Amino acid sequence: MLEFSIIKHLNKLKQKKFRKEEKEFVVEGIKGVVDALNSEMEVILVVVDGKLRDEKEFEKIITKAEKKDVQVAFCGRNDIEKIKTTETFPGVLAVIVQTEILSDQIADGPIICLDAVKDPGNLGTIIRTADWFGFKNILLSEDTVDVYNPKTFRSTMGSIFHLNIAKTGNLLKTLEKLKKEYEYKIYSLDLKGENHKNLKPEERAIYIFGSESQGTRPELEKIVDKSYSIAGHGQAESLNVAISAAVIMDRLSS
Amino acid sequence: MLEFSIIKHLNKLKQKKFRKEEKEFVVEGIKGVVDALNSEMEVILVVVDGKLRDEKEFEKIITKAEKKDVQVAFCGRNDIEKIKTTETFPGVLAVIVQTEILSDQIADGPIICLDAVKDPGNLGTIIRTADWFGFKNILLSEDTVDVYNPKTFRSTMGSIFHLNIAKTGNLLKTLEKLKKEYEYKIYSLDLKGENHKNLKPEERAIYIFGSESQGTRPELEKIVDKSYSIAGHGQAESLNVAISAAVIMDRLSS
Repeated sequence: MLEFSIIKHLNKLKQKKFRKEEKEFVVEGIKGVVDALNSEMEVILVVVDGKLRDEKEFEKIITKAEKKDVQVAFCGRNDIEKIKTTETFPGVLAVIVQTEILSDQIADGPIICLDAVKDPGNLGTIIRTADWFGFKNILLSEDTVDVYNPKTFRSTMGSIFHLNIAKTGNLLKTLEKLKKEYEYKIYSLDLKGENHKNLKPEERAIYIFGSESQGTRPELEKIVDKSYSIAGHGQAESLNVAISAAVIMDRLSS
Repeated sequence: MLEFSIIKHLNKLKQKKFRKEEKEFVVEGIKGVVDALNSEMEVILVVVDGKLRDEKEFEKIITKAEKKDVQVAFCGRNDIEKIKTTETFPGVLAVIVQTEILSDQIADGPIICLDAVKDPGNLGTIIRTADWFGFKNILLSEDTVDVYNPKTFRSTMGSIFHLNIAKTGNLLKTLEKLKKEYEYKIYSLDLKGENHKNLKPEERAIYIFGSESQGTRPELEKIVDKSYSIAGHGQAESLNVAISAAVIMDRLSS
């Protein structure tokens, strides 16, 4: 049985408001919890389904958590109904402290920037794809979906622990700063730019991908050095933002 | 008010079993319905929210449907609760006859083949992306998700009407036939093939993308001419299937 205070806390973390207030988030599943324990993030609690505690995968997690002085709690069947965030509880979850990454900390190598991406699945997929192609730095606009949303986390497939993800309170100001202080070039992807096949990898470049419905916001245009479009010759009117980002990251990776 | 028989029919079409039996599917929203009416598909019924019938966009749809001798029915507020497939009914839907496309009909130009893709959003996104890059032919394995699933349809953003999408009852046999009778080369995407940057566009080539969790099934290996992998150098273990397909389609499109 879980202590009531833990159940209450886990339930609070299902809401974005409380995740922000508490600066914590929840990860479910063996892979996610193992990745978290292996990362530099601070894990503060691991909850394991009591009836699985002797199974090898779970035993390993418990040993690892104890070595790192992370509290381990066991839950019963009745607790699971109360704490799970997915239909089927995968037997383990972890509560992790949100690491605040500042824009200066991502000013090293190319940056993938997302402007008002609202779909958690798209954000998660972009993070996973960036990790595949070896991009290290992600910059999220103030109105992009919460990276600690459970759906986003699931779509990242653990890649959230491999990248530096900064969220800005003012995208325009942050971009201006990166351009001025770190000499970044700023490129945006839209439907009327130069052919994307002409893009060349650059160390100090920021690639902005706009929202699924609106594209990059007009106020950013003044600081954009050049815009590119993904060349297509079919009849579709647009591409999904995660698809656009993937195509560009593939073109930029050597 | 809608006739009870129409409400009953629309509700049946929410289930895959009945969509298959009736060989019909439902499309919601202005863009989808307009695309359907402009396509060669057979639309058999258009349902419009009665209180929107005088608005310009809806008026156009009604005129267009009537010109094509398509039945138009109007629904009231109580009907909407019963028939809608999304949270908010977008004011219009159409019932369309499923067009059965045989494998011989797609034997013209490159073919994107999906093996056991289970996620409707991924299937829809792949169809939309194929339409962007100008691919015309899609081949779906017997266990790929239903292309007429409302979620799939929404993710295609109307591109379902621009492509030839064939579903086979036996993928291995269909591929053998396309290889033997139409001299197609068969390429699969996996995690241990040649660098995808070496792929060259070919007219008679089939590109197989496996399921999100399993990859291409082993029984297909014997007919695969060559396998390719998307080169990456980050830490992610795999890519989402829609992302992989997009990267390959971009590389193949000139």
